[in-house]
Amino acid sequence: MVKVVAQNTMVPEKVEEAIRLYQELVAKTRQEKGCIKYELFQDVKDPSILAVIEEWESQEALDMHMKTEHFTRIVPMLNEFKVSSNLNIYKKII
Amino acid sequence: MVKVVAQNTMVPEKVEEAIRLYQELVAKTRQEKGCIKYELFQDVKDPSILAVIEEWESQEALDMHMKTEHFTRIVPMLNEFKVSSNLNIYKKII
Repeated sequence: MVKVVAQNTMVPEKVEEAIRLYQELVAKTRQEKGCIKYELFQDVKDPSILAVIEEWESQEALDMHMKTEHFTRIVPMLNEFKVSSNLNIYKKII
Repeated sequence: MVKVVAQNTMVPEKVEEAIRLYQELVAKTRQEKGCIKYELFQDVKDPSILAVIEEWESQEALDMHMKTEHFTRIVPMLNEFKVSSNLNIYKKII
């Protein structure tokens, strides 16, 4: 299992528009082979911080995800609304 | 539901010792009321980055967790091995 935390700080005025873009990204990604979980979260103290927390069956499934039509189309649009981002790929140890 | 990502960069030589401390913290926390998930992850590219990804029934359950004997004893020991840390508390939006 591969866990991903993709944390993004958005331009504050663009958060709502970003969430609308995420709606489609989340819905389509959840239908992908190898996708166990794909959820969007918002920081309770700073609403401009959004995080996608993901669970994939394998690194291969995650690699395939990043080549899909919806990923390669929607992520560049989201990037225009980002101030900064952090991506971590994890393995579970406990 | 409350989601927590507690990401910590550890002193590289202290990672194994930190994981041993986390063993007890994870085991005891999973027995707490209101704890849905409490898992330890390690970054696949940088093994000095550890992250606890948590799910709690409520903010109250999370507040109680931070007052437990195991939390108040083990977390200060872990802090001595940390170079930096980031804590985010999230609500699920999609």
